[in-house]
Amino acid sequence: MKTYDYPNSRALFERAAKVIPSGIYGHLGPAEGCFIPVSAYPFYIDHTKGAYFWDVDGNRFIDYMCAYGPIVLGYNHEAVDKAAQAQLEKVNCGVLPGEIMVKLAEKLVSMIHSADWAFFAKNGGDVTNLAVLAARAHTRRKKIIKFAGGYHGVAQWMQFIGNAGIIPEDVSNIITLPFNDAEAVREAFKRYPGKIAGIIATPYHHPAMADNALPVEGFWPEVRRLCTQEGAVLIIDDVRAGFRLSLHGSDHHYGFEADLICYCKALGNGYNISALCGKNALKEAVSSVFYTGSYWLSAMPMAAALATLKELEKLDGANLMTSLGRRLTQGLEKAAQEYGFHLLVTGEPAMWNMRLTDDDSGVLHQQWVSECVRRGVFFTNHHNLFINTAITQQDIDYTLDVARDAFSVLRASRERSKA
Amino acid sequence: MKTYDYPNSRALFERAAKVIPSGIYGHLGPAEGCFIPVSAYPFYIDHTKGAYFWDVDGNRFIDYMCAYGPIVLGYNHEAVDKAAQAQLEKVNCGVLPGEIMVKLAEKLVSMIHSADWAFFAKNGGDVTNLAVLAARAHTRRKKIIKFAGGYHGVAQWMQFIGNAGIIPEDVSNIITLPFNDAEAVREAFKRYPGKIAGIIATPYHHPAMADNALPVEGFWPEVRRLCTQEGAVLIIDDVRAGFRLSLHGSDHHYGFEADLICYCKALGNGYNISALCGKNALKEAVSSVFYTGSYWLSAMPMAAALATLKELEKLDGANLMTSLGRRLTQGLEKAAQEYGFHLLVTGEPAMWNMRLTDDDSGVLHQQWVSECVRRGVFFTNHHNLFINTAITQQDIDYTLDVARDAFSVLRASRERSKA
Repeated sequence: MKTYDYPNSRALFERAAKVIPSGIYGHLGPAEGCFIPVSAYPFYIDHTKGAYFWDVDGNRFIDYMCAYGPIVLGYNHEAVDKAAQAQLEKVNCGVLPGEIMVKLAEKLVSMIHSADWAFFAKNGGDVTNLAVLAARAHTRRKKIIKFAGGYHGVAQWMQFIGNAGIIPEDVSNIITLPFNDAEAVREAFKRYPGKIAGIIATPYHHPAMADNALPVEGFWPEVRRLCTQEGAVLIIDDVRAGFRLSLHGSDHHYGFEADLICYCKALGNGYNISALCGKNALKEAVSSVFYTGSYWLSAMPMAAALATLKELEKLDGANLMTSLGRRLTQGLEKAAQEYGFHLLVTGEPAMWNMRLTDDDSGVLHQQWVSECVRRGVFFTNHHNLFINTAITQQDIDYTLDVARDAFSVLRASRERSKA
Repeated sequence: MKTYDYPNSRALFERAAKVIPSGIYGHLGPAEGCFIPVSAYPFYIDHTKGAYFWDVDGNRFIDYMCAYGPIVLGYNHEAVDKAAQAQLEKVNCGVLPGEIMVKLAEKLVSMIHSADWAFFAKNGGDVTNLAVLAARAHTRRKKIIKFAGGYHGVAQWMQFIGNAGIIPEDVSNIITLPFNDAEAVREAFKRYPGKIAGIIATPYHHPAMADNALPVEGFWPEVRRLCTQEGAVLIIDDVRAGFRLSLHGSDHHYGFEADLICYCKALGNGYNISALCGKNALKEAVSSVFYTGSYWLSAMPMAAALATLKELEKLDGANLMTSLGRRLTQGLEKAAQEYGFHLLVTGEPAMWNMRLTDDDSGVLHQQWVSECVRRGVFFTNHHNLFINTAITQQDIDYTLDVARDAFSVLRASRERSKA
């Protein structure tokens, strides 16, 4: 199989490094080297279509990161782009909101089981932060429970002492507990009676750099019961999992009800929007928080989001992605086995995590991912991956061919080192 | 003159209030009633073009809020929309950045006098917050000076004890001083030696609910000198004033150099983007901060921003807006005088503030603004207004006609109450 080179990406990165901190910053950048196989990796995209992107060297990839989540229907989706374009021709960023804001809120309320209302912003972090502010406003308490490894954006309270620019006051009211440990949650409420404003958590545990974990039986019912009993707000951060497990909310998927639920990524198929949804009991608290932004009522991403939600319904999108993800991950596990490796798949099929367990250091897994990337299958190392509805059985078959070819390279290398 | 009614806006708001906190939230909403003449006000926009918008009742307005700043070239600007559309057809939100990110950073660095690099995000608040994190990372100090009434977004540190959801720890390292008071800045550095990480300020003082103030002579040179001497980071929040005073940075406009400078609003003519620019000495600190977002490397708003900057250069945009703003505000002052009122204009002409001083309560000013709005001139009460380059002499003449008609209503009312 042909492997890719990236001369244009490398040249452009040199240019970028002069005028952009780190050249490429954030979770898409090579500076966050632990997540991506840098040496095997393209740095710049040229164009996209459906399940694929092409880098600036003309290499084609099947994108199993889906722009780190937002692309849920495939890139350049016709119905979504058409709705966005039609709205743009009328108004995008206006001095007032458009009717589309009302329509989109009505649509989310009709779809999301625990949503009585919706509030729109731009980043996932805008709405996880608003949720925390609203929980504090509602309860007049300070403390927030989160779970170790859970990611809820880059606001100061979400970060850690030792992270650049973070001061102790930023995180002094955050209680970090192990996910799936209802007893620890019970203990925290006992230890800080009347002090805990809320709990923020992803619906299942999908930290980077670790195996993912589904909620154990009884965890969510007990957390829900404790929050209700103690008057604390249960916030579900569905930014990453939203619309990939269920079109009715990931809390609903796991059989409980959140008080506040945060959406972003999949909501607009790449158009820039996020949403906080919630129960009527929290509506006044959310209204009371001073919270606004220049582009938050822009109409184009709202039109794109409405079209995305309708398309997801038409396709039964969450079930389709779950079924595609199951077929792919089962195929990958089998391919590993064929070559004498063990691939551990965790999390949910539509946004699975995987790791070769034959090597505790992670290096073997990184090698395999590198070989896949250089053959046109875009995986990352230690972050969950994503399915979108544009992926076909043919793409899955091609992916499995690439995976096998990559495993054959690993096996040959292992055999050489044994000899 | 015909005055407007808003039955469709009112009906839509009733529908919205059921599914959206406050119906319309944030700075565009009627809940923030002090800023807008609610009773005279449309709530929903239908479409836009150039200097105008049309509400859902078919009423046309000249928009002197410019979507609260972003619209700098007028709505639906052909060259900007064309560049955005061309980029969208290639890639918008991809799994990697496009070449456009490098081009846009190069353009900003070439234009903005104090910029050696650029970092892109989504909200103005994303970049003011990053600036504060970078100042703390760079200095390993905690305290930040800001100026009373200065607005830098909705992050917790920017808010106040008593605001819903804000806890004392959020603001315990913020020192608030009066703008234009270099002596107070000097005193703060004396009082907290080696503790002040940075100063964040708008280039001139444009708080809501107050007359605006240009920097007094000697203020910026002394603040700059103190920051350099004390090793503190000087952050200019140019989110609102950026590209309306100068295309080379508002710090440059006032004859000094910032260490970090924050852009948003005017940067993309309504497309969703913000930028932190800065000096090379801060590049590593910015790189070290953990800071990222799902849509931050999206290409479409970057293409729109590059087109916006080129168009602003072609038009000599900042000078054009200053000249339009001067003509308009001088006309408004004169119109007030003709009818026996005194309109106080403060700030810079391209984003002036105004207030009828004949009544300390502000009610008279609100009445006048209401009469203007109901005649198709979109002002707000107690917030600065904005010029864009699509405004013509004809629009200004029409605005002055409306202003006079509104003053005549006020004068008639005053005469009735005297009789």
